Amino acid sequence: MKVLDPIPHPARAELDLAAVLHALSDPMRLRIVAGLAGGEQGRSCGSFALPVTKSTCTHHFKVLREAGVISQRQRGTARLNSLRRADLDARFPGLLDSVLRAA
Amino acid sequence: MKVLDPIPHPARAELDLAAVLHALSDPMRLRIVAGLAGGEQGRSCGSFALPVTKSTCTHHFKVLREAGVISQRQRGTARLNSLRRADLDARFPGLLDSVLRAA
Repeated sequence: MKVLDPIPHPARAELDLAAVLHALSDPMRLRIVAGLAGGEQGRSCGSFALPVTKSTCTHHFKVLREAGVISQRQRGTARLNSLRRADLDARFPGLLDSVLRAA
Repeated sequence: MKVLDPIPHPARAELDLAAVLHALSDPMRLRIVAGLAGGEQGRSCGSFALPVTKSTCTHHFKVLREAGVISQRQRGTARLNSLRRADLDARFPGLLDSVLRAA
């Protein structure tokens, strides 16, 4: 069995405000974040039914992960996505809530 | 005397969350917004002493104006810039404050 490289995530202390704002500055990514904030974590890309191709969807999740907005873990061939709410709230208090209220 | 076209600004109701987040997603633009939030309004581009060229500075102010984050008015050859705090607070409650706290 092939051992996959771990998926890289920035640490809480490394989160950058401009990068997080950039990751949030897209209507599809806002929908993803709102969807993850609304409940169930560990959702796959396909579960969001976004009006974009699979590769665009994958791209949006990568941008969110690299900025530290979401975490991804591999399960089989799927990547399961969760919101890093505690990290975001610790570093940028009130930001995520204000974005979710406005989204 | 040449009459200048008025500088276009989006109305409060037209402000778009993704566009505002994009406008804020740059370190130089965050510095500008923090500077305008800190006090005096009607400041010119040059008054910020940013480590960028004048044309880059002008570009950053244009992005902020087109997203509705700042307003600009012409006085002679200068454009004076003010933060649209009331409009931002009305449309996206808490967003500007959370960004300013984190910036």
